[in-house]
Amino acid sequence: MKALVFHGPGQKAWEERPKPRVEDASDAVVRITTTTICGTDLHILKGDVPSVKPGRILGHEGVGVVDEVGPGVRAFRVGDRVLVSCITADAVCPACRRGMFSHCAHGGWILGNTIDGTQAEYVRIPLADTSLHHAPPGVEDEALVMLSDILPTAFECGVLNGQVGPGDTIAIVGAGPIGLAALLTARFYSPSVIIVIDLDDNRLETAKYLGATRTVDSGREDAGRRVMELTGGRGVDVAVEAVGVPATFDICQSVVAAGGHIASIGVFGMSVELHLERLWSQNITLTTRLVDTVTTPMLLKMLAAGALDPTPLVTHRFRLDDIMRAYDTFANAAKEKALKVILAGA
Amino acid sequence: MKALVFHGPGQKAWEERPKPRVEDASDAVVRITTTTICGTDLHILKGDVPSVKPGRILGHEGVGVVDEVGPGVRAFRVGDRVLVSCITADAVCPACRRGMFSHCAHGGWILGNTIDGTQAEYVRIPLADTSLHHAPPGVEDEALVMLSDILPTAFECGVLNGQVGPGDTIAIVGAGPIGLAALLTARFYSPSVIIVIDLDDNRLETAKYLGATRTVDSGREDAGRRVMELTGGRGVDVAVEAVGVPATFDICQSVVAAGGHIASIGVFGMSVELHLERLWSQNITLTTRLVDTVTTPMLLKMLAAGALDPTPLVTHRFRLDDIMRAYDTFANAAKEKALKVILAGA
Amino acid sequence: MKALVFHGPGQKAWEERPKPRVEDASDAVVRITTTTICGTDLHILKGDVPSVKPGRILGHEGVGVVDEVGPGVRAFRVGDRVLVSCITADAVCPACRRGMFSHCAHGGWILGNTIDGTQAEYVRIPLADTSLHHAPPGVEDEALVMLSDILPTAFECGVLNGQVGPGDTIAIVGAGPIGLAALLTARFYSPSVIIVIDLDDNRLETAKYLGATRTVDSGREDAGRRVMELTGGRGVDVAVEAVGVPATFDICQSVVAAGGHIASIGVFGMSVELHLERLWSQNITLTTRLVDTVTTPMLLKMLAAGALDPTPLVTHRFRLDDIMRAYDTFANAAKEKALKVILAGA
Amino acid sequence: MKALVFHGPGQKAWEERPKPRVEDASDAVVRITTTTICGTDLHILKGDVPSVKPGRILGHEGVGVVDEVGPGVRAFRVGDRVLVSCITADAVCPACRRGMFSHCAHGGWILGNTIDGTQAEYVRIPLADTSLHHAPPGVEDEALVMLSDILPTAFECGVLNGQVGPGDTIAIVGAGPIGLAALLTARFYSPSVIIVIDLDDNRLETAKYLGATRTVDSGREDAGRRVMELTGGRGVDVAVEAVGVPATFDICQSVVAAGGHIASIGVFGMSVELHLERLWSQNITLTTRLVDTVTTPMLLKMLAAGALDPTPLVTHRFRLDDIMRAYDTFANAAKEKALKVILAGA
Repeated sequence: MKALVFHGPGQKAWEERPKPRVEDASDAVVRITTTTICGTDLHILKGDVPSVKPGRILGHEGVGVVDEVGPGVRAFRVGDRVLVSCITADAVCPACRRGMFSHCAHGGWILGNTIDGTQAEYVRIPLADTSLHHAPPGVEDEALVMLSDILPTAFECGVLNGQVGPGDTIAIVGAGPIGLAALLTARFYSPSVIIVIDLDDNRLETAKYLGATRTVDSGREDAGRRVMELTGGRGVDVAVEAVGVPATFDICQSVVAAGGHIASIGVFGMSVELHLERLWSQNITLTTRLVDTVTTPMLLKMLAAGALDPTPLVTHRFRLDDIMRAYDTFANAAKEKALKVILAGA
Repeated sequence: MKALVFHGPGQKAWEERPKPRVEDASDAVVRITTTTICGTDLHILKGDVPSVKPGRILGHEGVGVVDEVGPGVRAFRVGDRVLVSCITADAVCPACRRGMFSHCAHGGWILGNTIDGTQAEYVRIPLADTSLHHAPPGVEDEALVMLSDILPTAFECGVLNGQVGPGDTIAIVGAGPIGLAALLTARFYSPSVIIVIDLDDNRLETAKYLGATRTVDSGREDAGRRVMELTGGRGVDVAVEAVGVPATFDICQSVVAAGGHIASIGVFGMSVELHLERLWSQNITLTTRLVDTVTTPMLLKMLAAGALDPTPLVTHRFRLDDIMRAYDTFANAAKEKALKVILAGA
Repeated sequence: MKALVFHGPGQKAWEERPKPRVEDASDAVVRITTTTICGTDLHILKGDVPSVKPGRILGHEGVGVVDEVGPGVRAFRVGDRVLVSCITADAVCPACRRGMFSHCAHGGWILGNTIDGTQAEYVRIPLADTSLHHAPPGVEDEALVMLSDILPTAFECGVLNGQVGPGDTIAIVGAGPIGLAALLTARFYSPSVIIVIDLDDNRLETAKYLGATRTVDSGREDAGRRVMELTGGRGVDVAVEAVGVPATFDICQSVVAAGGHIASIGVFGMSVELHLERLWSQNITLTTRLVDTVTTPMLLKMLAAGALDPTPLVTHRFRLDDIMRAYDTFANAAKEKALKVILAGA
Repeated sequence: MKALVFHGPGQKAWEERPKPRVEDASDAVVRITTTTICGTDLHILKGDVPSVKPGRILGHEGVGVVDEVGPGVRAFRVGDRVLVSCITADAVCPACRRGMFSHCAHGGWILGNTIDGTQAEYVRIPLADTSLHHAPPGVEDEALVMLSDILPTAFECGVLNGQVGPGDTIAIVGAGPIGLAALLTARFYSPSVIIVIDLDDNRLETAKYLGATRTVDSGREDAGRRVMELTGGRGVDVAVEAVGVPATFDICQSVVAAGGHIASIGVFGMSVELHLERLWSQNITLTTRLVDTVTTPMLLKMLAAGALDPTPLVTHRFRLDDIMRAYDTFANAAKEKALKVILAGA
């Protein structure tokens, strides 16, 4: 089969690889019909993720059809249309029993990281019963593949951890795919004010279209100050960090109201300065989280009911064997006005 | 009357001051029968708290007897024995309606800060109905006065915010009065392992006496490493920060398990480095809080039922007019083996 | 002034009464600009509420302008436009400190019950600071008066107690003003399926207009069976009881799924049979509640932000001095297609 | 092997049966070293549980050693010492993903019900990875076997569902093994008053020994009235129903305070009268639950830490092949002063 293989920093190829087979009783092999590229894949290509070794097939998002199942798989059969979760879970270990699949003793984020991933014609999924989901009938691949990673990530790490509630004033810092997915899913809880902050006007336009009540261009004005003005000096109930650098974390610190939440979604490559000399008395809650995908069943229900539409996040479409070009587009997201790029398999 | 007056950094005096009177309909004047000194009072004396101006009577903890009430006071009468809460609250403003009395629009921490405090023969308590508590019969002043500040502070900021639960493994960093009060109140939720960390062997002995299952002398060994050994490399469910400096905050960061809580109680004078490059994926929750004293009624119930005994925190006793000497003792806590010093009024 | 006075079962009159004055330091007197009639008022007129004595001015809902304040009132001034809460609270007593204003030691539901109410030109509001709310600018009286009782009642007793969440399947039994207000506020949490059940086709039409995904006419079909069909035999996550009779409670029992909630809003005049022989193992939660109005500030925020529009619940409008006719209309709700009737003061 | 077989109402025998073998990839076979008898087993013998057919081996509690494992079992090996959970769970189905193992699509309470149980020399455990627990080293079988059913049942259905908290006043109605286990585990949350109600003085004595602050003999006095006296007319925060008949449920209804919880643990054979005509306005929460055993890992941790000692619940010990006599003793619990009877395998 063909697959997108990482060959060390800056190097990748769409090349022939052996088709994966069931290796363990709990495995399934899935033929990929749709996959996509994540910002994390770009980090890997830069060499920022040392756990990913040369020779690894990338990708942790995908929709497909079950091609083979191990004897221990109970919930899926050959031919089933499935969503691949970016998180693999055994459901048995202490972490999983607490719903913290991200720290599963035998799983977690391993796809396209420590085992081969989904940017390929086929992928082997360990612990299939607890790492795949049945695709609801009538839902398009394009919408569905957004539930592999970005929707549960934004919802769990941003919205649930931020405890967004009816009437809240929230700020989302970063309007990339994750920030916009946080916007989409924050609306499940009816905040009354949603301020989205980014440098890219195109993304801010999308944010408005998706329901932001205000947008702030942090390239043109001091975002922290502007948010304080917009909130009458009170600050926000929830600040969602969806970038992962000290500057955006600082905006969150400067706008969170007393009693508020900072929900960090971003993947940080360095430490940040936390202003406890001011925040110690402000009754704030700061959370971090690697997505657990425990809310994927609920998100699937919302998708099937038509109550969630992530397709506005899809900006570009390619054939799977055109993935090298898709990476170029995604890597130049601002210029290409790209959010999520869809790769359609055969 | 006599009172302990702040006269600028390093200067204080026990001197004559006018007896306070009811100024507002909601005021009560309380004759102090017992008060105590808080670490915050030492900070004020160092000049670290700019909101406190020379001429201010210090103190935000006290037990006494109501001497006069304003016409708007409904819940208290002259002669009632009362506990003074360190937090003044109107119960009406948006912050109070959320239970966040610490950020009351007309109160918060004002006693011994922006208005005269409790280290005096009499004190005026604004918003008395929601800032005083009836003393339960049969409870000694010494135990009761611990509920003005340190017990609710340790319980709300450390135990409740940390979400301590049955079977949990917790670490308390700092075994001063606040850390020990966190230990006492953490036990309400039956954690199975309680590790207390401090530099002072005397305080660690007290921690053991009060129920610590392990103690770590951070002067003799690397506390973070030791806690990881004691927890089999897993870390702790809850790390309670009860000091307020970067080094102790670092211990908390290094020992918190995936999915765990860092509950910050300490009063920080400077920022800290937060290791999001590691913690971003660890599903942690970090909280700060200025005590709201919303749990004081529950703590009073526990005290009255004999289910809470804070008296082991009392190490020294003085007459109120001997307060200058009490300050000397408290300021040399390590040498004097002092935790809380009691001042008994007439 | 003129007021609607209860003169015993079946008897009421719009008659002259002395204008109320401030009696206690915490009182305010409010000139009523808009009031409305509640189903409870009809119960009183039938003689079902023994706490209401002849001579009582009825009504516990209202919007108006502050006409006089006692010396203990801090948050309101003469001329302020205010919403009257149906629940009077002192914010001080143990019940209030837990947020259970409905059981306030000095308040609770007293307006139009044990003290004179709002169906009058003026009303005296005790404990004004914690029993009135400032009207947000730009919000019409008609919308605002829905927040005196039915919106917080439906939201607190139905939606919050029912723990409605994103993706949930819910059933609302009863499409009167309270049931429809439950529908409006349940949508804050994005349930994916909302089934509304009633006997009255007109009300079911309104339910559809307000967002019900399905309606069931319980006069034409077995509502319990129909809900089970609509949910594929699974039942509902939340069943909201908004009538208050055994038959509608039975529907709730028969449709609640394992792990689900029955949130009872109805005012019951008799006991019901609870099928513990079946439900004991079904992990259900059943709640009752007299509204606490603790969410009124949030609802006001939603109203001001345009995120909540209760005006479709208003079907009829009268001048206040035409209240006798308004009662006739409201008492014949089915025939008159009446939901809430608005009474506009001078 | 030998096993205790149900032969229809009133009939049972200790007889030879084929040793169970692994039938499915997820199965384990466990050699029973300790088992016990549950009140439910007596109900089965009376013919009250129609799902149990003649020929069934009874028992859903047990400790043993793994004798054989299927190829899909990942967490257990032959020779492992294990606790058998009374609830079998696949961890995959929608109910399990919500933590509601009791309603597992492929499990739930099946042992000694719809498949053969633990009152035998060997038992087959389906879905072993998620239905067995590793025995902590150093814990005796007698203590451990209490965690198969009664400890998690009492804790989850009584204490967690009742939301027992520090300082609470609680009543436990019924001092059999389940009621006493509720008492033991309620103490994890430090209620300040624990009132235990029963007809049997011997059981009330045990309750006192285990920490009840008050006991009420409901045979000698009106239990509801007595509880109201003991609580100064206020009632209890949590009423735990641990019997399962209308009379004890009535006690709970009559003593629950406004805002309180009724946590029903009992297995009810008939409906009850629920006094909504009074309770509709009392802000109460009533819960039912079939144990999910999701807290068993925590209880194991408490047991291993020495923070939980259920051995006072063990009153009688027999050899497993003496089980017919053990049933006689357990069936005459009052006369024999029996709580839990231990059966020790070879």
